[in-house]
Amino acid sequence: MPAKIVDVAREAGVSVGTVSKALNDRGQLKPHTRAHVRAVAERLGFRPNDLAQSLLRGRSFTIGLISSDRFGRFSIPLLEGIEEALDPERIAVFLCKPTDDPEHERRHVAALLAKRVDGIIVTARRTDPRRPLDLGREVLPVLYAYARVEDDAATCLLPDDFGGGHLAGQHLARLGRRAIAHITGPDRFDAVRQRRDGLRAAMREAGLPWREELVLSGPWSESWGREAVTRLLAERRRFDALFCGSDQIARGAVDALREHGKAVPGDVAVVGFDNWEIVAAETRPPLTSIDPDLMELGRQAGLRLLAMIGGESQPGTTTLPCRLVVRQSCGAAETRTAA
Amino acid sequence: MPAKIVDVAREAGVSVGTVSKALNDRGQLKPHTRAHVRAVAERLGFRPNDLAQSLLRGRSFTIGLISSDRFGRFSIPLLEGIEEALDPERIAVFLCKPTDDPEHERRHVAALLAKRVDGIIVTARRTDPRRPLDLGREVLPVLYAYARVEDDAATCLLPDDFGGGHLAGQHLARLGRRAIAHITGPDRFDAVRQRRDGLRAAMREAGLPWREELVLSGPWSESWGREAVTRLLAERRRFDALFCGSDQIARGAVDALREHGKAVPGDVAVVGFDNWEIVAAETRPPLTSIDPDLMELGRQAGLRLLAMIGGESQPGTTTLPCRLVVRQSCGAAETRTAA
Repeated sequence: MPAKIVDVAREAGVSVGTVSKALNDRGQLKPHTRAHVRAVAERLGFRPNDLAQSLLRGRSFTIGLISSDRFGRFSIPLLEGIEEALDPERIAVFLCKPTDDPEHERRHVAALLAKRVDGIIVTARRTDPRRPLDLGREVLPVLYAYARVEDDAATCLLPDDFGGGHLAGQHLARLGRRAIAHITGPDRFDAVRQRRDGLRAAMREAGLPWREELVLSGPWSESWGREAVTRLLAERRRFDALFCGSDQIARGAVDALREHGKAVPGDVAVVGFDNWEIVAAETRPPLTSIDPDLMELGRQAGLRLLAMIGGESQPGTTTLPCRLVVRQSCGAAETRTAA
Repeated sequence: MPAKIVDVAREAGVSVGTVSKALNDRGQLKPHTRAHVRAVAERLGFRPNDLAQSLLRGRSFTIGLISSDRFGRFSIPLLEGIEEALDPERIAVFLCKPTDDPEHERRHVAALLAKRVDGIIVTARRTDPRRPLDLGREVLPVLYAYARVEDDAATCLLPDDFGGGHLAGQHLARLGRRAIAHITGPDRFDAVRQRRDGLRAAMREAGLPWREELVLSGPWSESWGREAVTRLLAERRRFDALFCGSDQIARGAVDALREHGKAVPGDVAVVGFDNWEIVAAETRPPLTSIDPDLMELGRQAGLRLLAMIGGESQPGTTTLPCRLVVRQSCGAAETRTAA
C-alpha cells in the first residue's frame, strides 16, 4: 500500500497542510522544514505527483458546511470545532443556510461546487439516517458529522449515545440510586434507543433491575418531561433516580417533581442529556447532564475531512465519547465524580 | 452626480448582480436582458469602467460574517436573512467562529481579506457599541447588523428597541391593564434604556402613570426574573401587567408569579422580548413576545451590503421595526390583536 499524505505528516511531525506546502513549493515554510518533509516523503515512497493531482488541482482552501439545524444549537459548537481544526491550514468554512428542504440543499450544493470547495461537511439536527448528499457527477470528499446516512461507504462521525446513556446509569448507580426511571424522546430515533440501551447495560452491570413501566417515550419537549413525571407519580411508581433523553425533557421533569413536592436530588436524582448550558444551568437545581462534546466532534470532523482532501478515504461510522458534566441535580457525592 | 449601479438596476428593473453581469459579459443572461440593461446604463450615463473598477476587480462573490454570538441564537436567523438577500446574486457567506477575543477577530479579518471577500457583516450578541472593525490599510464595505459601533460614519442596522417597548406598552394598555411593571436587563445596555423609554412613551399616551418602584434592572437571566417578581410581591407592589426585557427574564417571572399563587394572565398579563421560540413557547402559559425580526434585519443587511459593494455608501444607523407575536400570556382579547 503506497504511503499517504497523512503518513508523511505523522512521520515528519507536521500538519498535512505543511506537507502539501513543502512538496509543492507553496506557502511560507522554513527551508529546513521543507527539506525535512521532502526527505520523509522520499523515504516513505510518497509521490508528490499524487499530491499535485489530489490535493492541489483546483483547491480553493474552503469547505462547505451544510446544516439542517435551524437554531444553531448543534451546528454552532460543531462549527467552532471544525474551524479549530481547519484554521491552521488556512481553510475557511462556508456555512449554508439551515434547511430541511431537499431543493434548497441541491442549490446549496451547486453553489458550493461552483465555489470549488475542497470538501463538504453535512450536519443535522438529529442523528437519524438521511439520504446521501447528491453531488451529481462531481467527486468531492463528503463527511457527515452528527448526521447518519443511508450509505455504508459514507464517512460519519456521531456521538456515542450508547456510551452517554451508560455514563448516566453508572453515575446514578454509583451514587447509590436503585430505581432509575427513564423519560426520553420518540422511540423512532436511533439516539433514543442507543441511550436507553446504554442505561440498561449500566444498570445490569450494577445489578439493578430494568423495569419497563419506568421507561416513557414522548416528544422532545419540556412539557413531555412534566407530563411523564406526573404520570409516573399518578401511577404511584417508585423511583429514586431519573435519566432524561434531553435537558429540555429533564427541565420539565424537575419542575414537575418540585411541583409535586418531590425534592431533587433528595428524593430523585436527575441526569439530563445534551449539556445545553442555557437549559441545564437555569434548571432548579442546575442539571447534571451528558455532554456529547460537539466541539470535539467538529474538530475530529475537520481533521478527517483534511485527510480525505489529502486523498485518504475514511469510510464507515465512528462514534466519539460523551462526557458527564456534574452540576447539582444528583446530590452531594457528585462533587467528587465527573469524567 | 454620476449614476450609480443601483440607479441602473432600479431603472432597468433588475438586480445589481444582473447589471454587473450585463455590463461585463459575465454569467448567463438572456440577450434581450443584457441589451436592455446596457441601454439603460448608457441613457443614465453610467460608465462600465466604474463598474470594472469598483465592482469587478478582485471580486470573489463571497462575503464574511463575523459574529460574537456564541450560541447562534441571534446569528443564525441573521444568517438566514443575509443568505436570502445574497443567494440570487450567487454570493456565498463565510461565517467566522464566534468570539469576543479581539486577537481572534484580527485573525478572522486577515483570513477574510486573504480570501478577497467583497464585504464583511459584523454581528454581536448585544446591541451595544463596539470598536470599529480594523481592516488595516484595506478598504472594504463593512456593515454592522444587530451591532452598534463607535463611529458615526459606520453603517449600522439595529432593531427598533424603542418601538418594541412601545408595542408592548400599547398592547397591555389596550387590553385594559393599568399598572405595568418592567423587569429588564442591566441598565448599561442601550437596548434596555430604549425598550424602557418605549414602554414609558406608550404608557404616557394611554394616560398611565410611570412608577419607578415598578422598574427593576438586573442580569439577563431567568433567575433574575424570579427574584424580581418575588421582590415586587414581598414589597406588596400592585401591578396587573409586566413587560420583561427578554423572554428568559419573562419565563422566570411567570414561574415565580405562578409559584406565588398569581394567575397569568388573570392577575398579571406578561409580555416578553426576543420571541425566542424555545423559551416563549415552553413558558406556562406560552409568552406573548416582541420579535426583533432578525431574519428581516439580515435580509436588509444583505441588500445594503450589495449596494455598498456596488459603490454606494450608506453611512449612519438605521432601525427596523419589531413585531408583536401573540401567544397566551396576556389574555383572551389577544387573539384579535397582533401586528
